[in-house]
Amino acid sequence: MPKYHDELDAVLRALADPTRRAVVERLAKSPAVVSELAAPFSMALPSLMQHLRVLENAGLITSQKQGRVRTVSLRPGALDVLHLWLGEQRTPAERHADRLGIHLARTDRKET
Amino acid sequence: MPKYHDELDAVLRALADPTRRAVVERLAKSPAVVSELAAPFSMALPSLMQHLRVLENAGLITSQKQGRVRTVSLRPGALDVLHLWLGEQRTPAERHADRLGIHLARTDRKET
Repeated sequence: MPKYHDELDAVLRALADPTRRAVVERLAKSPAVVSELAAPFSMALPSLMQHLRVLENAGLITSQKQGRVRTVSLRPGALDVLHLWLGEQRTPAERHADRLGIHLARTDRKET
Repeated sequence: MPKYHDELDAVLRALADPTRRAVVERLAKSPAVVSELAAPFSMALPSLMQHLRVLENAGLITSQKQGRVRTVSLRPGALDVLHLWLGEQRTPAERHADRLGIHLARTDRKET
């Protein structure tokens, strides 16, 4: 499955940078406009835009422009490929707990 | 916490290569000697050794030499730092399920 591996390569490479991870961490909370994302970093806007491009090419974020304002969001399921791979490296006892956890999360969602 | 971030950088960069991921996948099952690890790859031994060095520097593997045979193991808890970071990016419902899963895995381990 070369596609799965290429996706993993891109996601891992994109996340192997503290600035890009900080952007993902911020977007995990809610979408944000580019100026908000730039604020915590002492970084020129073009450098931040370059980081955003890497994240977008890795399929981790999407963005939408309305007028002059660009809003950036974490792509739903963006980190699934990494969860999946990490899950495959777990021991049988850990896997059992994972499956139960997923079941309980689904039950939770149906109830709320 | 710069140490946590440096560790994450190293782990993510080490895993952003399909050969190194394949080595981790193999070692997640059991320790292996270097010649076993080399077998599935059409790769010269020095290139594989270089990949192993990257994995070792990232704290993902350890190795022991006995006579002429070097045995490589996945370091216990090697992927914890990545699990932890991914966990922090999860939604509240998913986090709840994660905590329950960890609790159940621990209970499982005590019982066996």
